[in-house]
Amino acid sequence: MENQFLKWLLPQIKKEYRLEVPPGDDAAVLRPPGGSRTVVTTDLLTESVDFRFPRSKDDQEFPPVATAYQVGRKAIAVNLSDLAAMAAKPEAVVVSVALPRTDGRTMANELFQGIIEELERFDTALAGGDTNAWDGPLVISVTAIGSVSPGRCWRRNTAKPGDLLVVTGPLGGSLLGRHLNVTPRCREALAIASMFPIHAAIDISDGLAIDCSRLMSASQTGAIIDLKTVPIHADAISLSELKCDGNLTPIQHALQDGEDFELLLAIPPDAAHALVQSDPQTLIPQTTMRPYIIGAVTENPELLSRTADGQTTRLEPKGFEHVFE
Amino acid sequence: MENQFLKWLLPQIKKEYRLEVPPGDDAAVLRPPGGSRTVVTTDLLTESVDFRFPRSKDDQEFPPVATAYQVGRKAIAVNLSDLAAMAAKPEAVVVSVALPRTDGRTMANELFQGIIEELERFDTALAGGDTNAWDGPLVISVTAIGSVSPGRCWRRNTAKPGDLLVVTGPLGGSLLGRHLNVTPRCREALAIASMFPIHAAIDISDGLAIDCSRLMSASQTGAIIDLKTVPIHADAISLSELKCDGNLTPIQHALQDGEDFELLLAIPPDAAHALVQSDPQTLIPQTTMRPYIIGAVTENPELLSRTADGQTTRLEPKGFEHVFE
Repeated sequence: MENQFLKWLLPQIKKEYRLEVPPGDDAAVLRPPGGSRTVVTTDLLTESVDFRFPRSKDDQEFPPVATAYQVGRKAIAVNLSDLAAMAAKPEAVVVSVALPRTDGRTMANELFQGIIEELERFDTALAGGDTNAWDGPLVISVTAIGSVSPGRCWRRNTAKPGDLLVVTGPLGGSLLGRHLNVTPRCREALAIASMFPIHAAIDISDGLAIDCSRLMSASQTGAIIDLKTVPIHADAISLSELKCDGNLTPIQHALQDGEDFELLLAIPPDAAHALVQSDPQTLIPQTTMRPYIIGAVTENPELLSRTADGQTTRLEPKGFEHVFE
Repeated sequence: MENQFLKWLLPQIKKEYRLEVPPGDDAAVLRPPGGSRTVVTTDLLTESVDFRFPRSKDDQEFPPVATAYQVGRKAIAVNLSDLAAMAAKPEAVVVSVALPRTDGRTMANELFQGIIEELERFDTALAGGDTNAWDGPLVISVTAIGSVSPGRCWRRNTAKPGDLLVVTGPLGGSLLGRHLNVTPRCREALAIASMFPIHAAIDISDGLAIDCSRLMSASQTGAIIDLKTVPIHADAISLSELKCDGNLTPIQHALQDGEDFELLLAIPPDAAHALVQSDPQTLIPQTTMRPYIIGAVTENPELLSRTADGQTTRLEPKGFEHVFE
């Protein structure tokens, strides 16, 4: 029951100064940092699209099954990744769930264990939510609220021809399991924003090619991606060998797979070189970030790829897109 | 397709000063009113629980079927009602949807037509969202963001023994159709907050009895409801005669039915009398609000009802609650 569940959940939420009114009222009231802008993003996850639960006791199918705990962590992480792509500091989230009526309570407990842990990792408050039950599968919707100084957020529409394109880590093959263990680049974004002039940014949620095309299209520019410099994740190679997600080569996985949640940044050349040559560990202790220059922003509005021998071809903006009619 | 849908939707969203970054980026950036607190609430609606679509061409079953347009309006209205219950001014919303793959596009267009119209009624910005498709029924999750001066929001936990309880309109029978045509008491809340000292507030979303018990429990008080003074909506009488939602009397419908979205306020006696004696139209032009005193807050933590002849009995906190195991 909803009331019993809230009696379990609410005492676990720490009192904190940012919440003038904590969860449990009609709405939460946040004290935003003085003079800051409020950054808002929302992401909804559904069973079978964003994660899948086991169909049998020993379900070894592809992609790997998720636990409710992992879903809770992921739902928070993907929202924090959007805040990172704006160079915003995470402040609070609200979480809505539609729970299956059967086993919904166990699922809710595991889900919120993951949610609370992920929020603690990023010093973010659970400000409120809405708990629903229905005769359908799990749906979870998170809205994350962050703060940024006026005019200091990273936009998509401000990349400049001549900027270099930097990704914060290797790409591809996340469906082998990394899609259930996302590390949003929140700390990295704030550290980079404080040290380097970043012209534009997006997080790679649907695939490098499609997200790069979104960045370029918003900026009314094009880009050329140097294929030999795109960092390919070991998972992209494994997935290519397993052939369980199409017959793609490792570089195709790196270009088209979604859910890497690395950042794609457009940076003036000097700063881009300085960023990739700096030691990430001195910028952000214990970061797993490894930045790579993978191409450049161009005035020509096309999205191109360039092979090692210098040949360019049009790069299809492939990636994940929701399909409906 | 998601991209095509966004190409239709985004140009309809008006540019406005409150949005430093409008929809279409990784997140929206809001300029909150100077010195204000940020009020956040979220409500998720699912098909078959919060609304139902026709099962046949001529579906005359109870409760009445909804159009996607009505669902869009309702999803906004119920969130704005929570802001009203905090005496917060609506500023912006983000909207996440999970659309059925078939007919999802038509549904999305109608849904967002309703969303945009309802937002315009309350001068609220559409700041962003997330469009998903899946093999399930429609789910819509809205997060609404409002503003309020520090320390000025209405809480649930601040009702005082001796306060009178006021509802802003007649109750019951909303399932006959009013649940699809909700008028959140936003303007009324702001006007009342500026003129009367309100001790505590909640919006009646799940039923007078259960929501009153929530208000009292948060305030560690009880209440006594004078049954003869509870305003019974004409729909409560009709629904009682139709017997299509249990075998309840009109007063039982008024006490237990959800989705009225009137406000329940705890107010010091003098102010409560002044409020119900004032002409609502002079407070808020064209309001449909009609405030009634229906009882009082008590030190005794029980929730009691009193009949016309002065007899009191314990009032069960009945109303809508999500059920899961």
